[in-house]
Amino acid sequence: MAVYTDVSDEDLRAFVAGYDLGDVLSFKGIAEGVENSNFFLQTTSGPFILTLYERRVREEDLPFFLGLMEHLSARGLNCPVPVRNRAGMALGRLAGRPAVIVTFLDGLAVKRPSAAHCRAVGAALARLHEAGRDFPIERANALSLPGWAPLFARAEAEADRVADGLAGRARRELAHLADAWPSGLPSGVIHADLFTDNVFFIGPELSGLIDFYFACTDAFAYDLAICLNAWCFEADCSFNLTKGTAMIGGYQSVRPLEPAEVASLPTLCRGSALRFMLTRLVDWLNVPPGALVRPKDPLEYDRKLAFHRRVETAREYGWMAR
Amino acid sequence: MAVYTDVSDEDLRAFVAGYDLGDVLSFKGIAEGVENSNFFLQTTSGPFILTLYERRVREEDLPFFLGLMEHLSARGLNCPVPVRNRAGMALGRLAGRPAVIVTFLDGLAVKRPSAAHCRAVGAALARLHEAGRDFPIERANALSLPGWAPLFARAEAEADRVADGLAGRARRELAHLADAWPSGLPSGVIHADLFTDNVFFIGPELSGLIDFYFACTDAFAYDLAICLNAWCFEADCSFNLTKGTAMIGGYQSVRPLEPAEVASLPTLCRGSALRFMLTRLVDWLNVPPGALVRPKDPLEYDRKLAFHRRVETAREYGWMAR
Repeated sequence: MAVYTDVSDEDLRAFVAGYDLGDVLSFKGIAEGVENSNFFLQTTSGPFILTLYERRVREEDLPFFLGLMEHLSARGLNCPVPVRNRAGMALGRLAGRPAVIVTFLDGLAVKRPSAAHCRAVGAALARLHEAGRDFPIERANALSLPGWAPLFARAEAEADRVADGLAGRARRELAHLADAWPSGLPSGVIHADLFTDNVFFIGPELSGLIDFYFACTDAFAYDLAICLNAWCFEADCSFNLTKGTAMIGGYQSVRPLEPAEVASLPTLCRGSALRFMLTRLVDWLNVPPGALVRPKDPLEYDRKLAFHRRVETAREYGWMAR
Repeated sequence: MAVYTDVSDEDLRAFVAGYDLGDVLSFKGIAEGVENSNFFLQTTSGPFILTLYERRVREEDLPFFLGLMEHLSARGLNCPVPVRNRAGMALGRLAGRPAVIVTFLDGLAVKRPSAAHCRAVGAALARLHEAGRDFPIERANALSLPGWAPLFARAEAEADRVADGLAGRARRELAHLADAWPSGLPSGVIHADLFTDNVFFIGPELSGLIDFYFACTDAFAYDLAICLNAWCFEADCSFNLTKGTAMIGGYQSVRPLEPAEVASLPTLCRGSALRFMLTRLVDWLNVPPGALVRPKDPLEYDRKLAFHRRVETAREYGWMAR
């Protein structure tokens, strides 16, 4: 949950008056996203989401994020679209923070995805990759291989407080990935955080994707590896091959994987699992006093890593020759 | 903000299927209320609020709260109304907790109320008192005079950690109120927590009242005293006589105060200020680890108490003979 900033009714009304959206009927902080403050905003024109960008989002990245949502939506992907104000600007300022109003997406996040959900997510991820191909802005992935060592350095000394041997496992994993990490894979815009809370369904149908604030330019197959980690493990951290098969099959129904991507998938899964283990570990060890967000368990990804280390080929994730 | 309980999409869908509300389109935890978990629920029938009752609400009180909202709404007060399921029940169970779906009220809470807002709240409070007169259920006010001493006992030893001399001031105040507390005033249903977050406006018009979970049977004028405390002080805890005059005038435009109520108003203001100082003090000293709600400042009410102690007659709050 996340509402870090209070917005007064006067400030809100003055802000919304800059848009062609009519009068404000309702405004409620919502428990969505952990990096920003999000509000449900109902005006006489309909429902919207108002986002205030908090310190963890760099202001210079906002044109990438906002432009990307416009770009993807224009190519038929169902995602929030920034609303432009009367001056034609998507980005405004409210309560001392960068602020944007985006369209409201219907749908529910699923907590326990089925194989059918995984297939739909795989297909939507591939559509996102295709739709982003001609997006003209680049943004480096700050949380890929070069970012992991400095992240680990912030947690290394205390990692074994969280689990026996965790520091050693992370150190060995970093060394392995520094050698094995692939380069030259097909790349473009990736979502980079397509967890279950960022995908909406209405009944069995995928209705949209949200939260593009980790999106960046990186290997498409790395994005698929993130989704395999996020969607295809059971609560006990065992991998569900049926779900993996459905997700990869869904992905390939839109964009077939190239041989180099298939060969790299086990390494990409290890890397993405390490990435989430490390960011969660740093957050776990640095909960600020008065925090409003409970940190997520880094050990979930330590357990997933143990699975990935035993994987030899992409078949073990459900990949099949087509 | 408050979302204490996660609700899975499957559990939600099964719950909503028991109502005649169509399909779920959207479901988001919202930062409203501190005692319960609240969710914005959009179905094909429209918007609703779903509330899960957490441990601080006693289940045996729910028929009072739910019946009261139905009762007040039937008498023209704009407040949330519990939706009955297909079995005719307003109260259900979801995620192991008592749960209810209520109608959605448009409107915004104001942060810095004007005198016009105060007048509107005074009038709405009196309408609530009138509309509740024939409500058949009684509920004692657990947070009136007999409840304050045990509350203070939980905080007494540590009160001076929060402010110099706070324990002594509270002790003297309790002793004074034990002698001076009025009885026999006109009584009935009171809201007992009509702070700014519980009153919605659309533009200048009051659009509704929410959060009846402190409602109880007590003196009407005590409810007015709570509102004078909550609405008519400035940020520096100075009393704004213009706002007080507007609020009492608004109240009396619907229900004129009786002489005994006017005479008791200074004592009732002291009592209600002490009540909020004490509950906030107990919360302040007992923030559980991992709390998702920041405690409110008890010293705000210590300062308001200092003002009330100097007040001699209701004229100083803005009461005028009509």
